[in-house]
Amino acid sequence: MSGKGQTTLPGASCPLPLSDYPEITLAHGAGGALTEQLFQNLILPELSNTLLDERHDGAVFPANARELAFTTDSYVIQPLEFPGGDIGHLAVCGTINDLAMCGARARHLSLSLIIEEGLPTETLWRIIRSVGQTCRAANVAVVTGDTKVVERGKGDGLFITMTGVGEIIAQQPIRPTRIQPNDVILVSGDIGRHGIAVLSAREGIAFETPVRSDCAPLHDIVHALIAADLDIHCMRDLTRGGLATALIELCQTSGLGMMINEAAVPVSDAVSGAADLFGLDPLYIANEGRFCIVLPKENVAKALDVLRSFNIASESGQIGTVLEGPGPLTMETALGSSRQLDLLTGEQLPRIC
Amino acid sequence: MSGKGQTTLPGASCPLPLSDYPEITLAHGAGGALTEQLFQNLILPELSNTLLDERHDGAVFPANARELAFTTDSYVIQPLEFPGGDIGHLAVCGTINDLAMCGARARHLSLSLIIEEGLPTETLWRIIRSVGQTCRAANVAVVTGDTKVVERGKGDGLFITMTGVGEIIAQQPIRPTRIQPNDVILVSGDIGRHGIAVLSAREGIAFETPVRSDCAPLHDIVHALIAADLDIHCMRDLTRGGLATALIELCQTSGLGMMINEAAVPVSDAVSGAADLFGLDPLYIANEGRFCIVLPKENVAKALDVLRSFNIASESGQIGTVLEGPGPLTMETALGSSRQLDLLTGEQLPRIC
Repeated sequence: MSGKGQTTLPGASCPLPLSDYPEITLAHGAGGALTEQLFQNLILPELSNTLLDERHDGAVFPANARELAFTTDSYVIQPLEFPGGDIGHLAVCGTINDLAMCGARARHLSLSLIIEEGLPTETLWRIIRSVGQTCRAANVAVVTGDTKVVERGKGDGLFITMTGVGEIIAQQPIRPTRIQPNDVILVSGDIGRHGIAVLSAREGIAFETPVRSDCAPLHDIVHALIAADLDIHCMRDLTRGGLATALIELCQTSGLGMMINEAAVPVSDAVSGAADLFGLDPLYIANEGRFCIVLPKENVAKALDVLRSFNIASESGQIGTVLEGPGPLTMETALGSSRQLDLLTGEQLPRIC
Repeated sequence: MSGKGQTTLPGASCPLPLSDYPEITLAHGAGGALTEQLFQNLILPELSNTLLDERHDGAVFPANARELAFTTDSYVIQPLEFPGGDIGHLAVCGTINDLAMCGARARHLSLSLIIEEGLPTETLWRIIRSVGQTCRAANVAVVTGDTKVVERGKGDGLFITMTGVGEIIAQQPIRPTRIQPNDVILVSGDIGRHGIAVLSAREGIAFETPVRSDCAPLHDIVHALIAADLDIHCMRDLTRGGLATALIELCQTSGLGMMINEAAVPVSDAVSGAADLFGLDPLYIANEGRFCIVLPKENVAKALDVLRSFNIASESGQIGTVLEGPGPLTMETALGSSRQLDLLTGEQLPRIC
């Protein structure tokens, strides 16, 4: 399984006695001696910090900011490990990014595990290590958590729910209701990598040019945008439902239509080809390290300078504008016609986050 | 199914067109039009508030306190509805109570749903209503959330993960490391009701005296204890693993032994009889509305006065003391002998929270 190399350090070995417990059992979730062993030997060494070590019913910390942001997501992705990441890395990045989209810097995370009986202990260990590594790299900490185990056939390996609290660092609110007519819409890079990477791993399809997930934390790039004193009206990460769904939701909550230009939306050849093969539209495919920014025209050049100074946003660009009144999301196609984009009614790509 | 009467208002009917979607489908979790319909029609009407209505990636709110408490739990209970509650009521109470145990008043909650394809839409609706009712009664709000749907056979009806942020209202820290030798241990009522109620519902056993879960929010009672200016050293709710597990954990984190008196621990005849039948020890059975308090001897009388002024704590009493040095949890039995209590190694009662 790919993704393993990323999360296992050379020479490190799983700290639970694997000969005794090669798989997670129901007793690991019963709150008794095995729950304690799992926490002490497998979780705490990877995630330890003064708040988590306290082992209280909750973590207590100073507020440190006038305003806080608070977000939660459950991760049910299959497979648990995929090219470019795993469910643990995804959970931390997803939480950091949701907070960043509110103009907040993530500080405290909670981690709740729902494990299916029979999950290989070593898989769980790799994923917890990945959570720890991603946290350390982004200077955030898991300060409280929970572990439940459900019977074989009542779960699917591992579900993670992560919640984050962040400190608002933006001077102005960053939210859908601040979107204005004639604002410009930027996207931070090429779209569709995450969904295609997960789907190809799930289906066991190897493309000539392998597609890796774009999964990445966006805190540094958002911090730089805010520090550049740009009047950002709204940001949104392009996760489940992709770019199109994110913009349609912003049309609905802002009460303003939007127009995007198909030719301006970056899509790699590899993603484009794979999407064709799977019968998917890249506009609706999930990303986990891409976001859009809505801001006044005067700020565009400076924003693109900041974005392009980061490797993961080197392909960022202007893709559209906000219209004068209420309306749908419309796309000017490469052929010059225009087409309305709507929320999809079916399940395009289940279990990609 | 019991619990239904509690969560369905007379005359109210499920707002999703049941003839179209009597069951939750994968598309309800795909982030498209059906996810939107589920949120707008079934979730938002029950949980609406200004922050949730904003529909941003996260909720943004003022800190309002110097210190915050933060807690999370996943709820995987089966059955979803049981005598005295349901998974939604349980999630809100559990979160409020974990925050209360830290000396905090719950303010903002997040709600993340992992639904198994095929869950009856009406069941989901009843549970969301129950979340809303419990929140309103306790003056807390669900301000952000997530919904995922997994394929039939990859989940078990519904898992809920709830996270809470609360404002610390206690003047002194309330935590395990503040426990002192010779402190007194109080319990807020009779133990074991929740586990027995869930197990009897699951096994379809009707006892002569039906046992209802003790599931209840403890914010008012904890607020009253704090307002009475008691020097509370630690509190712990007696959830998974019951009274014995909670106290053993406190022995470990405080580094001090404890002695409890079996005869002083309140257990109802109905719970005692059912526990015998199931081969369970009430000391290890989960509760969802009971807690223990560790505080100096001088504060005991006043604390019991406050506790007993609440119906749900009318049977509260002193059950033991903290010893002078490190040690295990020991129980003086009704026969006068003493017995060490250890963490259980097996799965006593799976899926009770």
